[in-house]
Amino acid sequence: MHIFITGAAGMVGRKLTARLAADGALNNRRIDKLTLLDVTAPGKPDTFSGSVETVAGDIADSTALGKLIASRPDVIFHLAAVVSAEAELDFDKGLRINLDGSRALLDAVRAVGDGYNPRLVFTSSIAVFGAPFPDAISDDFHLTPLTSYGTQKAATELLLADYTRRGFLSGVGIRLPSIVVRPGKPNKAVSGFFSSIIREPLAGQDAVLPVEETVLHWHASPRAAVGFLIHAAGLDAGKLGPRINLTMPGVCCTVAEQIAALRRIAGDKVAARIRREPDALIARIVAGWPSRFDARRARELGFRGDASFDDIIRVHIEDELGGKIVN
Amino acid sequence: MHIFITGAAGMVGRKLTARLAADGALNNRRIDKLTLLDVTAPGKPDTFSGSVETVAGDIADSTALGKLIASRPDVIFHLAAVVSAEAELDFDKGLRINLDGSRALLDAVRAVGDGYNPRLVFTSSIAVFGAPFPDAISDDFHLTPLTSYGTQKAATELLLADYTRRGFLSGVGIRLPSIVVRPGKPNKAVSGFFSSIIREPLAGQDAVLPVEETVLHWHASPRAAVGFLIHAAGLDAGKLGPRINLTMPGVCCTVAEQIAALRRIAGDKVAARIRREPDALIARIVAGWPSRFDARRARELGFRGDASFDDIIRVHIEDELGGKIVN
Repeated sequence: MHIFITGAAGMVGRKLTARLAADGALNNRRIDKLTLLDVTAPGKPDTFSGSVETVAGDIADSTALGKLIASRPDVIFHLAAVVSAEAELDFDKGLRINLDGSRALLDAVRAVGDGYNPRLVFTSSIAVFGAPFPDAISDDFHLTPLTSYGTQKAATELLLADYTRRGFLSGVGIRLPSIVVRPGKPNKAVSGFFSSIIREPLAGQDAVLPVEETVLHWHASPRAAVGFLIHAAGLDAGKLGPRINLTMPGVCCTVAEQIAALRRIAGDKVAARIRREPDALIARIVAGWPSRFDARRARELGFRGDASFDDIIRVHIEDELGGKIVN
Repeated sequence: MHIFITGAAGMVGRKLTARLAADGALNNRRIDKLTLLDVTAPGKPDTFSGSVETVAGDIADSTALGKLIASRPDVIFHLAAVVSAEAELDFDKGLRINLDGSRALLDAVRAVGDGYNPRLVFTSSIAVFGAPFPDAISDDFHLTPLTSYGTQKAATELLLADYTRRGFLSGVGIRLPSIVVRPGKPNKAVSGFFSSIIREPLAGQDAVLPVEETVLHWHASPRAAVGFLIHAAGLDAGKLGPRINLTMPGVCCTVAEQIAALRRIAGDKVAARIRREPDALIARIVAGWPSRFDARRARELGFRGDASFDDIIRVHIEDELGGKIVN
């Protein structure tokens, strides 16, 4: 089996690559080849016995993309995207990468023809939804994104469903919760504090909480996100039906519940490293985000999220900290 | 005021042009100029005192479009589209006209810059919705189109909302019901019978009904559709808010109720010109269409549909038959 990953150098892309390389198989078939695309060439996985092609390229370059897709990968994971803040700051770039790039990928698959019908797993986002929200957002709630990023993801979901319906490919769009705990350094993303209030204290550093502890949010660990991608790759198209874009199950909890989980796992001293510094702008932006979903369809289709926020913290300690906390 | 209409040679485009020319004003401002675009040059209106420019051109030709938009029309009515059946048969053409053409128009407006922010009224469709449906489709029901046409309209709605949110233009998307009674000859559209079972009998001709009389559908007269467009052009953006795409109010009735209305207005002899010839394929396609909406937001925003199917028939008799029925 040949697997093609766009955005393979990103955080989720790297974890997916590592998981596939370690498993050596997908959908009970041996993986012979990985093709890894990103704007800078992705690293090669350590433990993989098959062949790996790493490519530095632009997802919106349809000529280069066409050549890569002509080798007919069996499964395509389409993760490449400009993130929310960048798509908002640079409208043209967001459209070009998130919408035109996705369209170029769909059209490259279609151009192969001759019965080629790969599974294409697309990472969408809960940003396809826009306030005002009901208490829990059901699977049939409308898409009224309030960011350019959410708009570009939602438009791609629509195209993915139509290309699937017409038999050009077999698409599954998965709307990821916020990924927490993100490894690495604090970044400037507005949502960054959901990770940093866990990550920094566990590493012996202070973290800033800019919102009230009553703020509710929808979380998944990086490990759960990779699990969603793998499960989507093996999903039976007949069971899925025509509504191929799915909100993934997440853990819904308040910031207070996040902190309580941290205290249970790492103790009072670690939890005390969180400083409250209310920021009205961040609070206002976060208030416009969706917080709770009834992800019934995804659960019925076998997608499994993290069991609790405690588990999300444990995943971070295991996968990123080698099991060690700085007390 | 300068008004630009794409798809001006189509049925709704011609009726909109005639109405604007007859009114001589829009939003209480005198209309000085009409620019009318279609693939074949639209006809000029009879009774208009301002200037009229008619253009034969392709909506997806961004260079030509850019030149037309550079003259900064105050209101743009974007009606140009490949219809549902054609978009299904010719996937590339549907994408090119319905999605890329719409995008070209949005980008042409954005390229003008310098504070240019026209009202852009876009005719969307209830084809943005896909079965299975609830009893009545609410304003917050999700968009899961089951045709390429519906997909292209839904993706354009998303872009229109984002370009509006970012201040590039002031968009309103209106999802039209099925337009009934369509004037002219019977066509091969699957929905054609909703019009022909009224139009042909009123003209002294037989018509074929291919579905059960229990079939429910969502209708608006051509006059109501033009009324929606005019109302959308004058809508206050503050009242509208960020959810700019609206399901228009229609008349929901069964085929039996359509026929009863025809009998009330034109008598038994006319109604007897409908022949029942069940067609399983047409019945199956129609069963997948939405039939009833709760178009609350549009009504609250002042959109007014036809009061009854009787009124829809009366509009046809007045506007198309000069008040005369063939008994």
